Amino acid sequence: MEHDLGRPRAERARRMADVLRQQIGDGHFAGGMLPDERVLGRRFGASRNAVRDALALLRAEGLITRRRGVGTSVVLAKHGHGLDRLTGLAEELTGCGTVTNEVRAAAEVSVLPDAIAARLEVPAGAGGVYVERLRRLDGVPLSLDTSYLTADIGRAVLAGDLAGRDVFALIEEAAGERLGHAEVAVHAVTADPGTAELLGVDPGAAVFALERLTRLEDGRPVDAESIRVRADRMTLRATVYRTPGGR
Amino acid sequence: MEHDLGRPRAERARRMADVLRQQIGDGHFAGGMLPDERVLGRRFGASRNAVRDALALLRAEGLITRRRGVGTSVVLAKHGHGLDRLTGLAEELTGCGTVTNEVRAAAEVSVLPDAIAARLEVPAGAGGVYVERLRRLDGVPLSLDTSYLTADIGRAVLAGDLAGRDVFALIEEAAGERLGHAEVAVHAVTADPGTAELLGVDPGAAVFALERLTRLEDGRPVDAESIRVRADRMTLRATVYRTPGGR
Repeated sequence: MEHDLGRPRAERARRMADVLRQQIGDGHFAGGMLPDERVLGRRFGASRNAVRDALALLRAEGLITRRRGVGTSVVLAKHGHGLDRLTGLAEELTGCGTVTNEVRAAAEVSVLPDAIAARLEVPAGAGGVYVERLRRLDGVPLSLDTSYLTADIGRAVLAGDLAGRDVFALIEEAAGERLGHAEVAVHAVTADPGTAELLGVDPGAAVFALERLTRLEDGRPVDAESIRVRADRMTLRATVYRTPGGR
Repeated sequence: MEHDLGRPRAERARRMADVLRQQIGDGHFAGGMLPDERVLGRRFGASRNAVRDALALLRAEGLITRRRGVGTSVVLAKHGHGLDRLTGLAEELTGCGTVTNEVRAAAEVSVLPDAIAARLEVPAGAGGVYVERLRRLDGVPLSLDTSYLTADIGRAVLAGDLAGRDVFALIEEAAGERLGHAEVAVHAVTADPGTAELLGVDPGAAVFALERLTRLEDGRPVDAESIRVRADRMTLRATVYRTPGGR
């Protein structure tokens, strides 16, 4: 990386961290152990100080821990969540561990907030259902999911196994049809203290805030979600094509 | 929102902030002005204190400013970047303003970092091209894009108008063919001090870190990018379908 000569050390560290983050996400490091500083320095053509700076960035993101005499290890596998297909979390993480849901709220709402009613395309003043779940993978918090559901579908969902199953599966059973599509918006925000405590991250840690409006096959919206996802545990992935007919 | 009675104020504030963030992203507020606290409180069935907490969250994200006697206004339009199609930034933001690029580095690299060579599917030790650009929309920083390109394509890109055009357009001219597809991984991280200064955000602000590996139509990877995007200025959007044949 001789093009780095004369570049500020912080920039070299950032670039090195980018490469390592990508490798961590790909499960590149066998046993979850990173090579030692000397080896990393050789591999990147970088100084020990630049290597330390890069590792400090990844540690601040919660991706690695460093212990004297032990070395640098990946904290937790970072799972990919595809933005290519509409899937529930448990469905997506099949084989990666056990998803459990702490149901923090599950109740009928006599009047939906106006903005939610508009999103769900029901009249202002209509009722619905509110569900809030803290989701864990193998016991470690992964996301905080809040859903506003239309009244008809929502009531059936309330009667379902919210602790054990994806809301998507419950909706499909209730509706007797498959879901159609969803519009997803992804934001990155810092965790407020309350969310940080629930998710088990430091206040100020970066988390994803996803908004997802899910529709039945006939296009009717039934589920307006807002989801906080730990960004140290989840990478969002997509394959994108240049031409609409490309896939 | 009577289901909120008895819920901690912080949670009500988070939920209100979620709805407002979505409305800001949709360009819901005419003239970029939010209603005053009293109106918002009525609309959400929430106390003034909860409204203030929600607005404080959005202000911390850099989405709004609050000025006494003026009110609460949206800082900048938050643009959507589609994850449905492979597009360059200038191409995506056509009609939203003027994209300019500060070329911070554009040079041949005699040896690509091993991890990058592996991603680009060229032999270890192969050379390539490195391009780093700070991209602004109407003069305000939006993203810091770093690209490693294969040598053949990269040299042609170096000869192109890097200050004025998307790298994707330059690659397509150089290759004489359209791009095919790209694999995108989206991370959320906090901005390190160096990146924060370049992007004009506070250190510790949440930013997107995107990795994008772009391929020609024949599948050959030519561009391995790492991109930092201001999360207060850009929302990533996708439409996802339940069944692979759904679209």
